[in-house]
Amino acid sequence: MTQRIAVLGNGGFGTAIALILLENGHDVVIWGNDATYLERVRAKRENTKYLPDIELPQGLHFTSDLAEAVRGAKVIVSAVPTRFLRGVIARLAGCRVPRATVLSLTKGIDHETLERPSEIWRAAFPGRSVAVLSGPSHAEEVARRIPASVVVAAPSAATARKLQELLTTERFRVYTNTDPLGVELGGALKNVIAIAAGVSDGLGFGDNTKSALLTRGLVEMVRLATKLGARKATFTGLAGVGDLITTAFSPHGRNRAVGQRLGEGTPLDRILRETEKVAEGVYTTKAVMALAREYDVELPIAHEVHEMLFADKNPSEALRSLMNRSTKNEAW
Amino acid sequence: MTQRIAVLGNGGFGTAIALILLENGHDVVIWGNDATYLERVRAKRENTKYLPDIELPQGLHFTSDLAEAVRGAKVIVSAVPTRFLRGVIARLAGCRVPRATVLSLTKGIDHETLERPSEIWRAAFPGRSVAVLSGPSHAEEVARRIPASVVVAAPSAATARKLQELLTTERFRVYTNTDPLGVELGGALKNVIAIAAGVSDGLGFGDNTKSALLTRGLVEMVRLATKLGARKATFTGLAGVGDLITTAFSPHGRNRAVGQRLGEGTPLDRILRETEKVAEGVYTTKAVMALAREYDVELPIAHEVHEMLFADKNPSEALRSLMNRSTKNEAW
Repeated sequence: MTQRIAVLGNGGFGTAIALILLENGHDVVIWGNDATYLERVRAKRENTKYLPDIELPQGLHFTSDLAEAVRGAKVIVSAVPTRFLRGVIARLAGCRVPRATVLSLTKGIDHETLERPSEIWRAAFPGRSVAVLSGPSHAEEVARRIPASVVVAAPSAATARKLQELLTTERFRVYTNTDPLGVELGGALKNVIAIAAGVSDGLGFGDNTKSALLTRGLVEMVRLATKLGARKATFTGLAGVGDLITTAFSPHGRNRAVGQRLGEGTPLDRILRETEKVAEGVYTTKAVMALAREYDVELPIAHEVHEMLFADKNPSEALRSLMNRSTKNEAW
Repeated sequence: MTQRIAVLGNGGFGTAIALILLENGHDVVIWGNDATYLERVRAKRENTKYLPDIELPQGLHFTSDLAEAVRGAKVIVSAVPTRFLRGVIARLAGCRVPRATVLSLTKGIDHETLERPSEIWRAAFPGRSVAVLSGPSHAEEVARRIPASVVVAAPSAATARKLQELLTTERFRVYTNTDPLGVELGGALKNVIAIAAGVSDGLGFGDNTKSALLTRGLVEMVRLATKLGARKATFTGLAGVGDLITTAFSPHGRNRAVGQRLGEGTPLDRILRETEKVAEGVYTTKAVMALAREYDVELPIAHEVHEMLFADKNPSEALRSLMNRSTKNEAW
């Protein structure tokens, strides 16, 4: 049955998910903040900045009017970067927002309030059903219909199954999971580790080094997330190790790319100035270290990433600190 | 304290570990079966076939005489491919073998007897201490002193710690683990999943596809290994997910390479004919499916790999079977 669906945010992943929903016969509108850019996307049928070389079918609608975007929507897909989310939600407060299910795609943590995107939604629209989607799903590949598997998690299994049905295609396999906290944290935390993996690349290290970093990074993700109440098993799934692997290896990975440039010696402010797309991991690192202090969790890799990003620590020195920690038993 | 150490097998990884031991000041001899080739390695100070472009220091000794190799050894490092191991051990039976600790590096399962390499050693030399080493450690990178982390596991924690001390360098970080079964199975089973990852590459799929395969593959590894008595936690460590990632992404990965060529449409017999190095995963797949039947475990990815390798199943059909299994809850 055709449903009206609003996708908030005209980035690569929001657009890729809009294409999936369109393929499944839904009535999909993408909202973006920049009316001029959006008009260009509509006219060219291509999202040149965030999803180049993918033709966007005529059936896909665009608007820069938030109220129009959400009107009649059964599902609101939230694909807004974390630091813009609060602003978008504030503007929504002035609109008539239907009692739609919210599906959040945003992989970050607000570094000022330490809230997750789903929490920001829930606080603004109490009682609304808020689900999250995560997993290894680079937009460029999803939009090209290259097979991918993701996880949708919601507090209610019925909501998760409803969204699973909405999103599953022959090339896009959706699993359900009933640990939305873990799924959302997995997507956010992995970006911090991906920056470390990028640094390793930038320093010219190899796959052994990177795999070791990812493995120990996964331990850190679990350590923090379980303290916050998430389930360990979620991190051995698509939203944990799966997403971590893709983010740390894919040439599309923007957090990995930030790390690589850091490793090559480029200062952070220059990297950020030259990057069109938002690398959530930079801000998430701040949030993660604040949470680590609050919950008294030891996160050596996140700590070194934080030092490199915000305290000018030399990357090869940071990696050396990680390697030279006293050798010990392998434990979680 | 300098110890005499015999490395059996002149492949890439055996040689790389010999270099580590040499760096730590030990008296190391590499045994190889092919006297002519070994003489060439010794003269050229380069293992051209298995570890090209790495200079082998004068201090590294070579012999094709097994009895001479193990004479006075405190540790015997076993780096012989699984299918040659029984033969080498049979020849050792005629030698005076000191009561050395055996450290097995071999990542396979005997597809006829379904024994692990450490079991084959233990059966031949009852009462001897047999440890295993695994983790993300491509020989080419280890030999180039690119940072790597591995796991050494032994039934006794003291043995594991002794080997840890023997092998740790500034660039080679050794963790201990007391689940030798899990560590050994991790190294063997991941090769099967790496073949599937290679097939995905060969078919031109992306990092999303590969990460999903690895994540679901890890579930299969855990499912079989825990039935055999291994600990689940080992598989979220370096010998599980860590090694899996490297094997599935590294350009050096020979099991991945076999999969890639399969995915590109090359028949197995031609691949094997043209490959100098042993791709353990091909034989391990046979063993894994036999174990799956014996222990009644469902392993969809290993099953498809088996069908592609030994029943001429079309690779894109095999991958499609995996993607189209009925969508369900993400569970271990």
